[in-house]
Amino acid sequence: MASLGEFEFIDQFLRSQAAQGQPFYRHPLALGIGDDAALMPPLDAAEQVAVASDMLIEGRHYFPDVDPRALGHKVLAVNLSDLAAMGARPLGFTLSAGLREIRTQWITSFLDGLFALSREAECPLIGGDTTAVPQGGAEVFSVTVLGAVPKGSALRRDGLQAGDDLWVSGHLGDAAYAVTLKSTDPKLDWPQPRIALGLRLRGLATAVIDISDGLQSEVMHLLHGAAGRSRAPAQLMATLCWQDVPIGPRLRQAVSARQRDDHEAVCIAITGGDEYELLFGASPHEQSNIRDIGRHLGLALTKIGSVASSETFGIDWRDAQGQPLAADWQQRLHNGGFRHF
Amino acid sequence: MASLGEFEFIDQFLRSQAAQGQPFYRHPLALGIGDDAALMPPLDAAEQVAVASDMLIEGRHYFPDVDPRALGHKVLAVNLSDLAAMGARPLGFTLSAGLREIRTQWITSFLDGLFALSREAECPLIGGDTTAVPQGGAEVFSVTVLGAVPKGSALRRDGLQAGDDLWVSGHLGDAAYAVTLKSTDPKLDWPQPRIALGLRLRGLATAVIDISDGLQSEVMHLLHGAAGRSRAPAQLMATLCWQDVPIGPRLRQAVSARQRDDHEAVCIAITGGDEYELLFGASPHEQSNIRDIGRHLGLALTKIGSVASSETFGIDWRDAQGQPLAADWQQRLHNGGFRHF
Repeated sequence: MASLGEFEFIDQFLRSQAAQGQPFYRHPLALGIGDDAALMPPLDAAEQVAVASDMLIEGRHYFPDVDPRALGHKVLAVNLSDLAAMGARPLGFTLSAGLREIRTQWITSFLDGLFALSREAECPLIGGDTTAVPQGGAEVFSVTVLGAVPKGSALRRDGLQAGDDLWVSGHLGDAAYAVTLKSTDPKLDWPQPRIALGLRLRGLATAVIDISDGLQSEVMHLLHGAAGRSRAPAQLMATLCWQDVPIGPRLRQAVSARQRDDHEAVCIAITGGDEYELLFGASPHEQSNIRDIGRHLGLALTKIGSVASSETFGIDWRDAQGQPLAADWQQRLHNGGFRHF
Repeated sequence: MASLGEFEFIDQFLRSQAAQGQPFYRHPLALGIGDDAALMPPLDAAEQVAVASDMLIEGRHYFPDVDPRALGHKVLAVNLSDLAAMGARPLGFTLSAGLREIRTQWITSFLDGLFALSREAECPLIGGDTTAVPQGGAEVFSVTVLGAVPKGSALRRDGLQAGDDLWVSGHLGDAAYAVTLKSTDPKLDWPQPRIALGLRLRGLATAVIDISDGLQSEVMHLLHGAAGRSRAPAQLMATLCWQDVPIGPRLRQAVSARQRDDHEAVCIAITGGDEYELLFGASPHEQSNIRDIGRHLGLALTKIGSVASSETFGIDWRDAQGQPLAADWQQRLHNGGFRHF
């Protein structure tokens, strides 16, 4: 177990790194690491605060041989992805870490990854807690991120409307495919939170969610969200084209090389988690605006289908000709899985 | 390991409990558990946000046989104590929990303790994360609490002025004494965050800190805070009367029963952690205001000494006659402790 002195070293190190290049630390009313609590610079009068928390536990979310730089990036990225899905601009984050021991090299790499993203996203470390976990205990990193969003303009999960198109950012499946190969992939290890996209979807998207549990599951979340709204009209049914799902380049290559067939690749892309792309609904009138945003950000934005009022509830997967997917594939999708292959 | 279904049950349970009786959940722009992020009701234009995070780890901060109600109370209380020390009013908190398994009875008791304090402090649960820890891993609870404070009025650690009196709330030592006896005590298990006191110290106290590491150590934090200020004049020396330190009733009883002597009791009170009282500095002109606040809150507020500009830096412990403490006791205090007895 590390001595208290070593933890104090880490605190000092964190304090100096956290401030580097961050406008937060130059605001006269802001206060970072070191007091009982951090103080945020005052918001614009028209803004409100968004808050999200996510915890990564060793042996559950990552393994001891993880690249520490990638882990430092990811623990912040998954939280920033939640802010992106609300259309919030990042304000700052706290990090609580439970460590078995201080391995200087490992920690330095972890913080390199963490602070690189922190600076890129202008989201400074402002506080937290560092403690030793008991011998043999799993290490744990818990992040809470704060963001700001114009009052009443947050992109919620419950706003989907009958007639909306459904869109996804980027491409899907490479993270899940890497897991099945017990391999690594940039999508799995270096997820890019879609903050800039979230900001541009304000006032345009009707509902947004980030894809952490898999596309299929997140579409269901949006449908349930709409149904849970008190003002919800009828039930909503999503009709999606499985051939329109944007497949990651690695998975597409595996299909070309005949290591995977089309259906199987789509199945991986639809059910695989850990993607951190955004899924959103928008009126068909917004199509050209959305394509402009995609071009401006250099980010693929793909329409995968639409939702309509219906007697039934759920997802209807079709092919490019509008034909229903064969029953056994429908079954596999609804069972959630590439794990069955 | 608990199944996903059980964790979903917990999420549902949390959601219904979190909202109960909390004004937060009635605000039209607020959003609690269930979306990608929570949304705080907009602040008053004159306010800024304070944020603190604390993590409790099994085997480190508590043992598996802990009273789960007390643990639920404590994980929120230690965070609220940080807000109290900033003079902030609580807004809400997130809870991330890593659990080995779902023990329904245990979790229900834990949440009873958590939500009782949450309602009392009008500080609702607004989000978080629940995950399974690997077999054999330590359980972990990580809380981040948000508060609001008038712009520029937060009670910081770095404001102590030469001439200030030093005060402590409540009484000290019973928590640490319970630990030495391997026993329990309300001070140890049910710490009361001094939120109402913190609010009343705004504009009155020059510097405030909560006593989590022991009085001696926190006085040093305030002295270092003042020294670290760019506008700091000279060094500060605190002259404190050890007989004025308010000793807890249980420790006082042990002295009466001659199980402990005076010096030893004070030593426990001065060096013991886990007290969660407030230590603060204030101008001597504020003495009667401070005594009024104490009477109004029904909370003992005790002046234990004062600070002055000095060639030297640190704490000078005196007795009621102004005589320096015997060298061996000075040494024991500076070594931090009752552990040596």
